[in-house]
Amino acid sequence: MKSFSFSVEKKIKDGKARAGKIQTPHGDIMTPAFIPVATKATVKSLLPEEVKRAGAQAVLANTYHLYLQPGDELVKEAGGLHKFMNWGGPIITDSGGFQVFSLGVAYGKEISKITKTTDPNLLIPERADDERLPKLAKIGADGVSFKSHLDGSTHYITPEKSIEIQHNLGADIIFAFDECTSPTENDLYQEEALNRTHRWAKRSLEHHKKLLSEFASVSRPSALFGIVQGGRNEALRKKSAKILSEMTVQGNAPHEAGSYGKSLVRTGFDGFGIGGSFAKEDMSTVVKWVNDILPEDKPRHLLGIGEPEDLFMGVENGVDLFDCVLPTRLGRNGTIFTKKGKIHITNAKFTKDFSPIEDSCSCYTCSLYSKAYISYLFKANEMIAGTLATIHNLHFIVHLVEDMRRSIFDGSLELMKKKFLKSYIIS
Amino acid sequence: MKSFSFSVEKKIKDGKARAGKIQTPHGDIMTPAFIPVATKATVKSLLPEEVKRAGAQAVLANTYHLYLQPGDELVKEAGGLHKFMNWGGPIITDSGGFQVFSLGVAYGKEISKITKTTDPNLLIPERADDERLPKLAKIGADGVSFKSHLDGSTHYITPEKSIEIQHNLGADIIFAFDECTSPTENDLYQEEALNRTHRWAKRSLEHHKKLLSEFASVSRPSALFGIVQGGRNEALRKKSAKILSEMTVQGNAPHEAGSYGKSLVRTGFDGFGIGGSFAKEDMSTVVKWVNDILPEDKPRHLLGIGEPEDLFMGVENGVDLFDCVLPTRLGRNGTIFTKKGKIHITNAKFTKDFSPIEDSCSCYTCSLYSKAYISYLFKANEMIAGTLATIHNLHFIVHLVEDMRRSIFDGSLELMKKKFLKSYIIS
Repeated sequence: MKSFSFSVEKKIKDGKARAGKIQTPHGDIMTPAFIPVATKATVKSLLPEEVKRAGAQAVLANTYHLYLQPGDELVKEAGGLHKFMNWGGPIITDSGGFQVFSLGVAYGKEISKITKTTDPNLLIPERADDERLPKLAKIGADGVSFKSHLDGSTHYITPEKSIEIQHNLGADIIFAFDECTSPTENDLYQEEALNRTHRWAKRSLEHHKKLLSEFASVSRPSALFGIVQGGRNEALRKKSAKILSEMTVQGNAPHEAGSYGKSLVRTGFDGFGIGGSFAKEDMSTVVKWVNDILPEDKPRHLLGIGEPEDLFMGVENGVDLFDCVLPTRLGRNGTIFTKKGKIHITNAKFTKDFSPIEDSCSCYTCSLYSKAYISYLFKANEMIAGTLATIHNLHFIVHLVEDMRRSIFDGSLELMKKKFLKSYIIS
Repeated sequence: MKSFSFSVEKKIKDGKARAGKIQTPHGDIMTPAFIPVATKATVKSLLPEEVKRAGAQAVLANTYHLYLQPGDELVKEAGGLHKFMNWGGPIITDSGGFQVFSLGVAYGKEISKITKTTDPNLLIPERADDERLPKLAKIGADGVSFKSHLDGSTHYITPEKSIEIQHNLGADIIFAFDECTSPTENDLYQEEALNRTHRWAKRSLEHHKKLLSEFASVSRPSALFGIVQGGRNEALRKKSAKILSEMTVQGNAPHEAGSYGKSLVRTGFDGFGIGGSFAKEDMSTVVKWVNDILPEDKPRHLLGIGEPEDLFMGVENGVDLFDCVLPTRLGRNGTIFTKKGKIHITNAKFTKDFSPIEDSCSCYTCSLYSKAYISYLFKANEMIAGTLATIHNLHFIVHLVEDMRRSIFDGSLELMKKKFLKSYIIS
């Protein structure tokens, strides 16, 4: 079985966009690539064959959710996530840090992965220990304590615990435990949080290498990515990129079990995530700062981003991987991507529209079903409504990034973007 | 394109069970066969490919539901039900009569397709015009007026209207409009209702032949089945079977358009449904009475029945077709068929059971997923939980009837039934 590697196959002239290949024990990911989210060990409403048929090369599952239910120990006993959920391709798990953020400081507020508001009231610095709203998570120096959103039980996650959970799940690519801060936090808090994230990154890396050395097996994660944080502060973002790029621990090559600490080789992260909750207008600036510093020979994953315009921005700035619930979540709610922008399929004008969502689309849904049928299924609350819409949305986004990859090879990325955004109405 | 025909291929010695073949414009149905229900133009939670992969040869859609939403005219405009829902195989539509029953006299009571109670209080005769409970349907001599369960709008369905709706939907096999009575009705009401059903059957047959002659096209239903009613009254059931068997109207061969009424040929029903709401213990008696009289050369469809033990009873008594929401509805609720009886997959004992639902089962679900995963998906409210359970249940029931067909050919039906029911716990 292949271990983890990354190679840049083509880089555009006068820019940062690049096409590459990530090798994992469960297959390759040709980058740039969009990775659909399988939060709870299933891409909602789709069987794995449909995920693959839509063009997905890998899936990303959420550590936080699977830790709580069914439990990472159970998944390990089942033979790991690949076998448990019947996905033979590469799997990525996140660190749980983002969920800690959304259950903690962001809980009950309108702050998400992308924060569109620039409301000055919301931008008043708030500390994570602000008690005006109920929170399910509390951040300490050593880790995070939180209450399960399922049953209220109390849990404590440290970097070591996060890595252990991710090793039990057995994804191909895992992430260091981090603290995702709100864009509304002040610089003082951002710096404090970032230092914590870096300490946690080091401990994650150490524990990952330790586990690899002690129990090396093909079913263990072969790659660990560090997560760059720092909010929208230039100095902090650059510092984070530099520190994580240079961070190494004593380790040894994969599959050399039983020799932890004995090797003189120092190894670092296999790739990097760019984390954070962004005001939309800050995102490209942050990605630019960070990717100027991150090493060229390691893959970069922009976490939780999936709008077409943001995917272009990321690819142009040297991002290799994206994941986002957007195409699947929107699909289940009847919002569908088209080359002209998003449409709401239950809109009256589609009731008698017997053409496919897009004539030019080769997805399963567009090949066989009309807008009228899908619109009717949503109105009738039929389960396959979400399935059909999700298949198209996933196909749309996955192939959009695949097209970007192709255009990197033939030098037409800029042209392709212009053409796409000329007809696509951003909403 | 083939028109409708039926042939008996094998009949067992010393019994009524038979294997046959129904030819329709959209393919053959090898009988006996279980037909899954696609109430609202979709077998709930499954894409059509999964329905086919589970072994289904045809689907049955509900006229009442499709008439109200999206409307039969819209389905017609879409090119008919086959195209609209992407099901290339044979389609059957019911008459709407059962829904009229369940929204009328049975509304708000514990009376369904199979009524398990023999509570003497419930068996006190009640008339359909009993006003103690709110009803959505009212039966008149000419047809039924009812209120939509969706928006409260008022509708009136006559036999002609039911046939017209079914022609618009364009299924291969359609049913005459009937009144399904409650087993709690007295003999007087049963007789009155039966006479009405027979008058409606005649009008359905006449209107079907008229429409066929006037607008003959390959997209029109090629077969009309009459529905035998009569509650649990022997004389009425036998009378109904005889009258419908002998009922003919002036007609002409299919696809001889524009000659309605000019032909001297008298034609009758292409097959028969056995309708009714049954106390479980009455069902086999009723089926025996009826099938003794119905012609051997026409197919017989026992409407709405799907429990394994009832399928055996039906096949033994010469039934060729069954349909039922049972395997799909139970599947969505986490109740799964096994050779040892039904199991509830969320039961604690399956939490760490990493074996498939049935080792010997060749369905998609059993080939790739563990009980632990399916159990977890139900607890996590994931959409594909219902999909995976439904696939197995459908495969189980469809193949059970397929096995009966095989055993008819090799003379082992009795043995096969004994073997099955020895391990299968009826619940």
